[in-house]
Amino acid sequence: MPVPAFFASVPLEKAYRLLNHGPTVLVSSAHAGSVNIMAAAWSCPLDFSPPKVTVVIDKATRTRALVEASGQFVLNLPCQSIAALTLALGSESALEFPDKLQRHDAQLFSVPEVDAPLVQGCVGWLVCKVVPEPHNQTTYDLFIGEVTHAFADSRVFQDGHWNFDDQPDALRTLHYVAGGQFYVTGASLKIDAPESL
Amino acid sequence: MPVPAFFASVPLEKAYRLLNHGPTVLVSSAHAGSVNIMAAAWSCPLDFSPPKVTVVIDKATRTRALVEASGQFVLNLPCQSIAALTLALGSESALEFPDKLQRHDAQLFSVPEVDAPLVQGCVGWLVCKVVPEPHNQTTYDLFIGEVTHAFADSRVFQDGHWNFDDQPDALRTLHYVAGGQFYVTGASLKIDAPESL
Repeated sequence: MPVPAFFASVPLEKAYRLLNHGPTVLVSSAHAGSVNIMAAAWSCPLDFSPPKVTVVIDKATRTRALVEASGQFVLNLPCQSIAALTLALGSESALEFPDKLQRHDAQLFSVPEVDAPLVQGCVGWLVCKVVPEPHNQTTYDLFIGEVTHAFADSRVFQDGHWNFDDQPDALRTLHYVAGGQFYVTGASLKIDAPESL
Repeated sequence: MPVPAFFASVPLEKAYRLLNHGPTVLVSSAHAGSVNIMAAAWSCPLDFSPPKVTVVIDKATRTRALVEASGQFVLNLPCQSIAALTLALGSESALEFPDKLQRHDAQLFSVPEVDAPLVQGCVGWLVCKVVPEPHNQTTYDLFIGEVTHAFADSRVFQDGHWNFDDQPDALRTLHYVAGGQFYVTGASLKIDAPESL
């Protein structure tokens, strides 16, 4: 698949801002011809420079094996228009449903220098190299990734800021609660810094 | 200060749902008569049972010393009505502005068995005991907490689910981006599980 329209690079020093507001992500990974995507609500920035992230990847997932074998994953940020796909990819394990990507018609694309696929229809993408931390991985299922490439849909992310208000609601990012319930990223609120600063 | 109206216990097995949608938090802590509150966008669930969370607490904060000394912190979930307080507490360090809580009129209250104060005007509270992980703390400023008590404002969190849609927007939680820009938690979206399940 070709790279999507409005696909734009994000400078690495601004990469944390893609994840700062706490959206749910799709974790994509690949190894030795196998590809998978799972949903994860438990992902978070960890550092600014170099940008790092955390993500919890359960031992009972196909993604876990692919990430451990390849040392790479992509955090794809889905938006409202693919909420059903996000729930489906997060509800079905590839271990039980090996055809889940095909059945739910997940559309992938690739970028140079990155083995893991990126997910079409998302509005942000953080390509990450695993920072090996065996104790965290074993004890907490917690993975640390260093962001090596960052991209966003230029309609909703410009100059290091999200800007959902001028675009269709379908492009707003998602925040998962449980049981199929999401919240969409809502209204923007700009607060002036305190007078002391 | 008294416990706020609508303050209700949340069963520990549902505690992760307070944080699952990725809101920005206020981290409160206390030790030896000192109290502080900082804002943190980098906080995330880590486990269901017992519930655990992660939060990044920079070495250059007053909160870091209080958390390390006391072994406890509270993640308070601010809402739109206290966005300015949230930005102020996140912009000023108590090391430079030792009177910041008083100057911004942060209202605190306490609950039994918990040394750290809770913040009035918030809509969720996760009391956490530090799970010591010196390597994570030193290398990544990353703290793991086990949730020992969870509370929420019963107007917006009932039966393990947020319900912002029937309440004033002032009670919606916040998601920080940068430079004083927040997003408010937006519309609810309920998606049916895939047919396979």
